[in-house]
Amino acid sequence: MGWIDSLKFQDDGLIPVIAQDASTNEVLMFAFANREALEHAVRTGQMTYWSRSRKKLWIKGEESGNVQHLKALYTDCDNDAILVKIEQDGGAACHTGKRSCFFNELLEENWKDVGVQIFDPKKVYPKK
Amino acid sequence: MGWIDSLKFQDDGLIPVIAQDASTNEVLMFAFANREALEHAVRTGQMTYWSRSRKKLWIKGEESGNVQHLKALYTDCDNDAILVKIEQDGGAACHTGKRSCFFNELLEENWKDVGVQIFDPKKVYPKK
Repeated sequence: MGWIDSLKFQDDGLIPVIAQDASTNEVLMFAFANREALEHAVRTGQMTYWSRSRKKLWIKGEESGNVQHLKALYTDCDNDAILVKIEQDGGAACHTGKRSCFFNELLEENWKDVGVQIFDPKKVYPKK
Repeated sequence: MGWIDSLKFQDDGLIPVIAQDASTNEVLMFAFANREALEHAVRTGQMTYWSRSRKKLWIKGEESGNVQHLKALYTDCDNDAILVKIEQDGGAACHTGKRSCFFNELLEENWKDVGVQIFDPKKVYPKK
């Protein structure tokens, strides 16, 4: 039985994945992976998710070039969530060009954008 | 419209929540919250989840005393995941007595326990 068989995927075949910067421990993004995505990530060293909106394997950075290099992979006490430590090419994980996707902070009962802008998404994703 | 109305809960009424140590940025656990849990967390400052196994509101630490004090709350670019920064009473977030729930690291295609044991779960949860 391989390592992946220990994991508990949801009924839809997905497992939650938290991506954390390997150097700073900043949480950069949250997404889902299926079995194929995790196997691809471990085999290639390039972080790979399952895109629920596009319904396809999502090799992070395949369009933007901002690849995530997998440095360490963990599962939790229930084997139903994944934490990865990655090195983020380009310095930004978010499609908005911000370093982290978690850039909306709740302050005095309002969401405030506290994100760090790294690139201009219009230049990185010119077709959108 | 309040801050909570901006969030996109899943079809089951839940939203994924990542809990991170406010000082070290270590990811301590992953769980889900519903609307009531998030409102309770923000109102009381005690991190609150929805327990899928027990099907009830889960005020973290209500049994063990290891409360999580909410220091900051973020949502991501899609408003469909939550990141909280917390101070963990007792120094351990996991019911196993380990500091973090993510203590299983994939090393040479095997899961290895790399966790830091903080307390003995048999003493903290004597009824189990």
